Amino acid sequence: MIHWNNLDTLHSFQKLTRLEKRVCLPELMAGENGAVRVAKYSAPMACGLSYNYAAKAVDDEILSVLGELAAEAQLTEKYAALYNGEMINTGEKRLVLHQLTRGQLGEPVIADGVDKGAFYAAEQEKAADFARKVHSGEIANAAGEKFSTVVQIGIGGSDLGPRAMYLALENWARQNKTLKLEARFISNVDPDDAANVLKTIDVAHSLFVLVSKSGTTLETLTNETFVKESLRSMGLDPAKHMVAVTSETSPLAKSSDYLAAFFMDDYIGGRYSSSSCVGGVVLSLAFGPEVFARFLAGAHAADESAKEPELLKNPAMLDALIGVYERNVLGMPVTAVLPYSQALSRFPAHLQQLDMESNGKHVNRFGAPVSYPTGPVIFGEPGTNGQHSFYQLLHQGTDIIPLQFVGFRQNQAGMDMDIQGSSSQQKLCANVAAQILAFACGKRDENPNKSFDGGRPSSIIIGDQLTPEALGALLAHFENKVMFQGFCWNLNSFDQEGVQLGKVLAKRVLAHDTDGALKAYSDLLAI
Amino acid sequence: MIHWNNLDTLHSFQKLTRLEKRVCLPELMAGENGAVRVAKYSAPMACGLSYNYAAKAVDDEILSVLGELAAEAQLTEKYAALYNGEMINTGEKRLVLHQLTRGQLGEPVIADGVDKGAFYAAEQEKAADFARKVHSGEIANAAGEKFSTVVQIGIGGSDLGPRAMYLALENWARQNKTLKLEARFISNVDPDDAANVLKTIDVAHSLFVLVSKSGTTLETLTNETFVKESLRSMGLDPAKHMVAVTSETSPLAKSSDYLAAFFMDDYIGGRYSSSSCVGGVVLSLAFGPEVFARFLAGAHAADESAKEPELLKNPAMLDALIGVYERNVLGMPVTAVLPYSQALSRFPAHLQQLDMESNGKHVNRFGAPVSYPTGPVIFGEPGTNGQHSFYQLLHQGTDIIPLQFVGFRQNQAGMDMDIQGSSSQQKLCANVAAQILAFACGKRDENPNKSFDGGRPSSIIIGDQLTPEALGALLAHFENKVMFQGFCWNLNSFDQEGVQLGKVLAKRVLAHDTDGALKAYSDLLAI
Repeated sequence: MIHWNNLDTLHSFQKLTRLEKRVCLPELMAGENGAVRVAKYSAPMACGLSYNYAAKAVDDEILSVLGELAAEAQLTEKYAALYNGEMINTGEKRLVLHQLTRGQLGEPVIADGVDKGAFYAAEQEKAADFARKVHSGEIANAAGEKFSTVVQIGIGGSDLGPRAMYLALENWARQNKTLKLEARFISNVDPDDAANVLKTIDVAHSLFVLVSKSGTTLETLTNETFVKESLRSMGLDPAKHMVAVTSETSPLAKSSDYLAAFFMDDYIGGRYSSSSCVGGVVLSLAFGPEVFARFLAGAHAADESAKEPELLKNPAMLDALIGVYERNVLGMPVTAVLPYSQALSRFPAHLQQLDMESNGKHVNRFGAPVSYPTGPVIFGEPGTNGQHSFYQLLHQGTDIIPLQFVGFRQNQAGMDMDIQGSSSQQKLCANVAAQILAFACGKRDENPNKSFDGGRPSSIIIGDQLTPEALGALLAHFENKVMFQGFCWNLNSFDQEGVQLGKVLAKRVLAHDTDGALKAYSDLLAI
Repeated sequence: MIHWNNLDTLHSFQKLTRLEKRVCLPELMAGENGAVRVAKYSAPMACGLSYNYAAKAVDDEILSVLGELAAEAQLTEKYAALYNGEMINTGEKRLVLHQLTRGQLGEPVIADGVDKGAFYAAEQEKAADFARKVHSGEIANAAGEKFSTVVQIGIGGSDLGPRAMYLALENWARQNKTLKLEARFISNVDPDDAANVLKTIDVAHSLFVLVSKSGTTLETLTNETFVKESLRSMGLDPAKHMVAVTSETSPLAKSSDYLAAFFMDDYIGGRYSSSSCVGGVVLSLAFGPEVFARFLAGAHAADESAKEPELLKNPAMLDALIGVYERNVLGMPVTAVLPYSQALSRFPAHLQQLDMESNGKHVNRFGAPVSYPTGPVIFGEPGTNGQHSFYQLLHQGTDIIPLQFVGFRQNQAGMDMDIQGSSSQQKLCANVAAQILAFACGKRDENPNKSFDGGRPSSIIIGDQLTPEALGALLAHFENKVMFQGFCWNLNSFDQEGVQLGKVLAKRVLAHDTDGALKAYSDLLAI
């Protein structure tokens, strides 16, 4: 029997808040004790990654209560309910099945008379088949020439996740001779976004992937028309240059305007759709379906590892609960995500949507206001760039911001050289190691301006290389972390009612149905 | 006589905290009263921009006390001291002269026996002359062919500002037939960053701009060697493909390894250097020196407008003080920057450095700890993209995040079309108008999950079009805002001691001079 209770009603949470002790990180991470923590506070993840939380503000006692909390909040049971097809997205009365796009975790899920796992697999096979035909030239432009570029048209989850995944593997694919098509992305309704892409690609050899689950997204439909008009103005037939990714019930699904249509459904939220056809079509076209299959395998392995009930052996759950401790006991409102990998340059932007849209809620899953903070603000840039930007505040600002590092032992592009006794990759890794210690331990100096208090908690996910499998595992780790946190906070992490009001008001502005301040702003902006 | 006092010692600040009233934004912004606020709470900025703060949580009474605070904190006098050449960066014993790179605001500043204004102007003229020769082909590659691409090698302020400025004007320049060279950027020590750029440009027709004030920045020197080796391996002479931007005393200054060297000095901090040669060389090469001169003129006009002592007529000061009110009275730790302009896609990343590195400090300018919060976390993405990402939390999360919008009436690229009765630009503008009202007023709904409390404050900077002048004014507005906030908090906004400890520890890791946790992390990362 699953109970959906608010965090502050749980005995284990009350116990956690009564633990008055706070760990002293500068002390715990100093000397050989620090090395012991680094060895001990590590949880293996899927695909050879590991989650190290030695520099988090926890100790055995706190972790033990967090384990009680995980059990009392029934995180494992709730996850099982989710992947076995219970209606977890209660607000919209929908199942939550994104994990099923990469493999079966429990019982077959039959919904709407269909085996959903088989449905997702079949759509993915359709996408793979289509991609192979594009790569072989069987599907080509009107002149019979191969496509060289794929352009995704989508916004939100149809943009951020697929874009971040593409950038994450572009160098890897080029190095491994599997970069089949270059990918570009059009998302913003700002016409300068589409204009910039259209002016800098070879349009005659470009294939456009139109992505909208509902088939009604304002930005995406606008950009579709924008692109089609541009194609026509160049004497090209849009129907020969465009495919759709949508739901079977969408107005886009049965159009002859597209070379092909690939389907997802309402059980996959936008921000969780990178492993569905939303990511699958563009990534299979860009890198080949075999690479996308490896990405899915990595994500599935991480999903499997999230089933582990024992907290210390479940890195996604552990990451989630340490985050809850930081948010609800230590009172920290922001988390920074800092990948030491240029390939992950847009991964923080994806996590920003994933986390903030899922858990930026003030009512619980039954609609009652909660009396505790929920999802934090997420931001980040790749290291070492961030070090030369906002790390000043992270080290010496008046608020403490918990940090989530990511690092890999090897680079992707296979170009590196020793300069002053070390490679660039070694310099990169040396910097992330140094930062963890600097944040945790600080350093006293007679000049207070050069003094560092330390006590700034961080974790790091470490891997050998950012391969397709590792990327899949990384993506799923964070999806599952956010899911577990949503369970702790008793939220529905799978709707986004907070985006509706702005849409309604924007329509009124465009219909000139405004008064008061809305009309005043509309006039100022000359709409 | 200027007094440097902590914020909490000022009578006007104490008065501000004693004002128990809080404005009720949903009430104040409703109906015709809202329209009155939009008309009234607007301050003209340089270059036709305007700063509208109708949707901020202030009223006449609060603004009046903020005016007293501005006077008591002597913001105008401190700004004058800065531009007249007093040693405002006390920690490093340096003048602060970035405004002087775009025009004289007060007396001539003579330092080190030199008229600094004339020095900056002369260096800019050198850069302009060099750019003209590159554009004419007088300076060309070894084969006598014109350069087509410029690649900036720099990190932090040598990357974020110039990159954001380039992206901001790329579409505008293409449309106005003044895009002379395409620009790319290499910043990260991750070898995959340089590899990706080198594999996707025409290296033989590329000119590299090496930017490091000190001439000792690890990332930049590493990438310089990386690029030089790549050039040599292609049979190219690096000295024919590279210029340096540095200080006259740097090891790079007199090297024969470069086609030319352009100089800045210690009185211009990295994050304030976009209007110096750090931005000037790459932007003059990309767009032509005339465009860069227009950008400087816009920045200078904004600097002039920041001299206005009356708070309500000084948008940079007003923006600064409303921010202080939000941070120190309303207790809000984060600010989001949301430009409704795809061209400003990396402007928030620049502001992140500008703001967080300047004011993310916990000791005052005399080294004494402050007992109030200082600089907030800054993050943001362009609208409408952000609406489909993290706006859920902004609308319905448990914390209130103040918002800074930017919008323009016209697009840059001159490509737009009417779809369903409105252009893309109108849709873009309609969205930002709608969001301001949605955040301020919210909307009650019987379903609590669809209910919006409102009361989420925002301001907007509005302009006709993002031209070089408008961009310069926008950049300077935020620089001056950050400066005024630093004065309020009694910080030295111009040093960055918080980045030093990590550098020291990274060197120890690379020298294998580690023990304890630092050695353990180094081993995990296989350094």
